[in-house]
Amino acid sequence: MLTKAEIQLYRSLGDKRERDTHGLFVAEGAKLVGEIVASPLRVVRLLTTSNFPGAEVISAKEMERISQLKTPTDTFAVVEKPLYNIGEANPQNNLVLALDGVQNPGNVGTIIRLADWFGISDIVCSADSADCFNPKVVQATMGAILRVRVHYTNLADYFKKLPAETPIYGTFLEGENLYSAKVENSGIIVMGSEGRGVSAEVGQQVTNKLYIPPYPADNHNSESLNVAIATAIICAEFRRAK
Amino acid sequence: MLTKAEIQLYRSLGDKRERDTHGLFVAEGAKLVGEIVASPLRVVRLLTTSNFPGAEVISAKEMERISQLKTPTDTFAVVEKPLYNIGEANPQNNLVLALDGVQNPGNVGTIIRLADWFGISDIVCSADSADCFNPKVVQATMGAILRVRVHYTNLADYFKKLPAETPIYGTFLEGENLYSAKVENSGIIVMGSEGRGVSAEVGQQVTNKLYIPPYPADNHNSESLNVAIATAIICAEFRRAK
Repeated sequence: MLTKAEIQLYRSLGDKRERDTHGLFVAEGAKLVGEIVASPLRVVRLLTTSNFPGAEVISAKEMERISQLKTPTDTFAVVEKPLYNIGEANPQNNLVLALDGVQNPGNVGTIIRLADWFGISDIVCSADSADCFNPKVVQATMGAILRVRVHYTNLADYFKKLPAETPIYGTFLEGENLYSAKVENSGIIVMGSEGRGVSAEVGQQVTNKLYIPPYPADNHNSESLNVAIATAIICAEFRRAK
Repeated sequence: MLTKAEIQLYRSLGDKRERDTHGLFVAEGAKLVGEIVASPLRVVRLLTTSNFPGAEVISAKEMERISQLKTPTDTFAVVEKPLYNIGEANPQNNLVLALDGVQNPGNVGTIIRLADWFGISDIVCSADSADCFNPKVVQATMGAILRVRVHYTNLADYFKKLPAETPIYGTFLEGENLYSAKVENSGIIVMGSEGRGVSAEVGQQVTNKLYIPPYPADNHNSESLNVAIATAIICAEFRRAK
């Protein structure tokens, strides 16, 4: 049985401000919640409409009231947001993704998931990118949110503090063909927002401009790729070319 | 000014059955609608809340009532569904994508968009895949729906009728590493649903089983990639390896 205040609190965690105030986020679905329970994260409330080890049973009606999903699942967890140190991102030793204003939560979630697949343990985001603890992001990561650290900072300032030799890759229409460019298995890969691309300030810091070629090379019908798709193609190629 | 019946009709085109009955679909947003107007497709109604060449002006309230979007745009078109012949798909001369039960409209839309980028002009879908004229699919294609033909059929029957030498590629956990496998620039690439993968019947017809390697190769954390992401990585590699 949930109190009115609890329902209101859990429901409010759909908003970033509330997540920040309380230091909490929500995760839904037995599979994802199971992974969270088995992870180092601290679960502060575990609720189910069926049965789940250690969970309190609530009614379907209560679940509907706290769920962020159109079709609520049977299991719901309220979890403490982990605190990461941006110093853990190490572009000298591994690839680090940087998201510059990627605002669609589904895209950010999908990018976190593919980072996990490609062994990228840190993603650094501009403050105007979607929050990684947005329920839509959490769901789209399919558990990868537990293994990939997502940091928020001013990208231009962050890049300035990196050792000068750190390669910063980014995609630009005037970039070099991804498949003929020399790529490393470390450094930063910046992905811009779909609408406006990489911002001017960040773009100036990109040392290696790349371009994903369409097929055939003179196919100018399709003006762009979805940002998560472009990220996947680049990460796959960096890892292949190793 | 729209009649009640018109509002009801346009609104109903969010449902596949209604789209099939009326042979119509809807598209929203000045950019997409502009591309449709310039295409061979027949627009049966063109509506705007601001100004758009040839469009009737309606109120924001009316737009809200007919729009399929959470945040309606200023331009709305009702369009005749094009009829394609599956014989136009030519896996002897080009890559053809086959979607086996891909039900998420966002994924199907993203796949249509990337097919356009990679010069794939035909996608053949199982009947239980998301309808390409679903408003969410249409929006996610960013105009690629005008350049890529999407067909619906029984995939197993369709594959049986292809010349015996047509390669049919598909992704399987036990498949060959994508980067060491011999790939052609023609044939079928089958992508399965995220939940259950390629169906057993279709899987039996796959002649070349492939596997997208994670990084590092022993990274078993991430159990899968989003289907649109996997499709992108495969298409990019087929086009690169050409």
